[in-house]
Amino acid sequence: MSVHSHSIVAPQLFAFEQPFALQNGDTLPRFDLAVETYGTLNPAADNAVLICHALSGDHHVAGRHHPDDKYPGWWDNMVGAGKPIDTDKFFVVGLNNLGGCAGSTGPLSRNPATGTPYGADFPFVTVPDWVRTQALLADRLGIARWAAVVGGSLGGMQALQWTLAFPERVRHALVIASSPRLSAQNIAFNDVARQAIITDPDFHEGHYTRRHTLPQRGLRIARMMGHITYLAEHGLGHKFGRQRKHPHYQYHYGSEFEVESYLRHQGDKFSARFDANTYLLMTKALDYFDPAAEHGHDLQKALAHVRADFFVASFSSDWRFAPSRSHELVRALIGARKNVRYIEVPSQHGHDAFLMEDAPYINAVRAYMHNITVSPAAPS
Amino acid sequence: MSVHSHSIVAPQLFAFEQPFALQNGDTLPRFDLAVETYGTLNPAADNAVLICHALSGDHHVAGRHHPDDKYPGWWDNMVGAGKPIDTDKFFVVGLNNLGGCAGSTGPLSRNPATGTPYGADFPFVTVPDWVRTQALLADRLGIARWAAVVGGSLGGMQALQWTLAFPERVRHALVIASSPRLSAQNIAFNDVARQAIITDPDFHEGHYTRRHTLPQRGLRIARMMGHITYLAEHGLGHKFGRQRKHPHYQYHYGSEFEVESYLRHQGDKFSARFDANTYLLMTKALDYFDPAAEHGHDLQKALAHVRADFFVASFSSDWRFAPSRSHELVRALIGARKNVRYIEVPSQHGHDAFLMEDAPYINAVRAYMHNITVSPAAPS
Repeated sequence: MSVHSHSIVAPQLFAFEQPFALQNGDTLPRFDLAVETYGTLNPAADNAVLICHALSGDHHVAGRHHPDDKYPGWWDNMVGAGKPIDTDKFFVVGLNNLGGCAGSTGPLSRNPATGTPYGADFPFVTVPDWVRTQALLADRLGIARWAAVVGGSLGGMQALQWTLAFPERVRHALVIASSPRLSAQNIAFNDVARQAIITDPDFHEGHYTRRHTLPQRGLRIARMMGHITYLAEHGLGHKFGRQRKHPHYQYHYGSEFEVESYLRHQGDKFSARFDANTYLLMTKALDYFDPAAEHGHDLQKALAHVRADFFVASFSSDWRFAPSRSHELVRALIGARKNVRYIEVPSQHGHDAFLMEDAPYINAVRAYMHNITVSPAAPS
Repeated sequence: MSVHSHSIVAPQLFAFEQPFALQNGDTLPRFDLAVETYGTLNPAADNAVLICHALSGDHHVAGRHHPDDKYPGWWDNMVGAGKPIDTDKFFVVGLNNLGGCAGSTGPLSRNPATGTPYGADFPFVTVPDWVRTQALLADRLGIARWAAVVGGSLGGMQALQWTLAFPERVRHALVIASSPRLSAQNIAFNDVARQAIITDPDFHEGHYTRRHTLPQRGLRIARMMGHITYLAEHGLGHKFGRQRKHPHYQYHYGSEFEVESYLRHQGDKFSARFDANTYLLMTKALDYFDPAAEHGHDLQKALAHVRADFFVASFSSDWRFAPSRSHELVRALIGARKNVRYIEVPSQHGHDAFLMEDAPYINAVRAYMHNITVSPAAPS
């Protein structure tokens, strides 16, 4: 019943007609956030869950916009009626982050100062900026305090930032396949991706829409490289190995191995749908995030005033955000005497595991969410 | 004394005026190999050591061409008088592989059929092709049998291939930081590198020299990405961490983190000196190498007729050619009842460790080379 009732969803646009000061010193005169919600906010407004998205995600978390949509939202296996984040119990909110390209104000939006798309003039946004826009959204929705803020990867950074910036407004943070700051290797991969985009001759210093072109070559390369780093070496080996498209070597630069076809297809798809300036901004937000920095690089100190309980999960084969990065966070939480549950999930899925269905992971999220108390729903 | 006498070296060009049939079915009408030698071939001609290079190496293995050269050859810490591969004992031969861009016939060479550079018309070359050209070079030098064939990474594949193709002509094979075949992840990284080059608008389907241009953007991206994979996550973290060029974030796409400057510099340097078509060919040779394939994917079977003794080394933090890839080879050698010494070196240097100086590694190579018997030198 309820599975069906929630399966068709519609995005909403929330307009914020007020100047918004960003961490980099710029001010946006106004902004929109694209939002989707699932389930019903209870009268006490204590059953709300915020889902924060990662690099390429958006507000379309679960369900379908049209019955004939081929794919549901990006976390449909996690969010829905009877699912680990159960929309029969929780009121779940997904949004497209500021600077995104799926409906919220971002580089593709019209710059009121010029009447043309922002493009490269869109300001840099940071994880703390995003969390402050999400707090404005919570105000608008009448949510004083989230039952939980949940995110994987870059989304996990936002969940962590919520507990730091608004300790009173978060009961639980679920930080999955994430890290309290990027490593040199992470930053290096991000920078190669950015260089691929920026040196694409169609980039035009970020004002490609004015030239009626797109830096798809560079974005495609960035995504192909990124995609390798989201998958586990073993998982990739298991799925593709050295399987070839032809029994004999062809001696050309077309796809000879199945893994080549797969990656090129991923790159083609992504570069046709995603905005390059948004990709650049998102990777910089990742690089910049480092909440311990302003506390003498002591994460435990940074966490001193946190009030949320934490659920932290990592995946054995994730080398982009390795378990050791989650250990860093868990150690600091324990040191700061916070409540934290940690699970290291054996998985072949690499960083992408946070989107997949390894049973120990799904079960742990389900159990954790099940134990969150909420007030009764309104009588129907 | 002898250290000094060997420190100035000169490359030689060996011309092979005979058609050479390649594995892909093409035939080169003739070819040159750029070669450097160090030390003296003894009267019995049983002290010769061949050094096979990796992706971006060449014949300039050790010493300097001019006294004021800033850097010596790429393996000068390993090869020289009194060094682990001791040129007071051994006659050491380095060459630039066929298809290279450092003097041997390759895509930059004049195609006799057209009078212009081969460019994209240069045929695909494989590890077995290279080994056959190296055998012709050995004939020319009067070397019936190598005391040792030595290589790291792609060079290690050539050392292995020597033992398979010419079992009578190799006494010892030193296979370092290598693999009997690439994994899906290895191939995936290679393909992204190739796609970066091929989709560079200056690539012109490989005939860029005719257009008086170079696909430096793509080659730079390929090298930056490759470079990350040659280094260990920990080594990179240790060297750069999150060190910044300015105390505060600059909010731009210039280099903000030291690791970005470093990588961009590596990419710039490499793309100014290396030929893109050669890079493409070398990565394909890596992908294609799979000597077990023609033996039902049974590496032990492939090794049945090998007569060489093996020294195999891997490095703990090398994730491009992880220790497990060396284990594959060692297990098969043991299964085939061959003599093999194996060392897994604890190192922070990642794949690049084969070029570095971790003491257990250097000492092991020194000891192994020391134990190789050679006939006396000619009386001086």
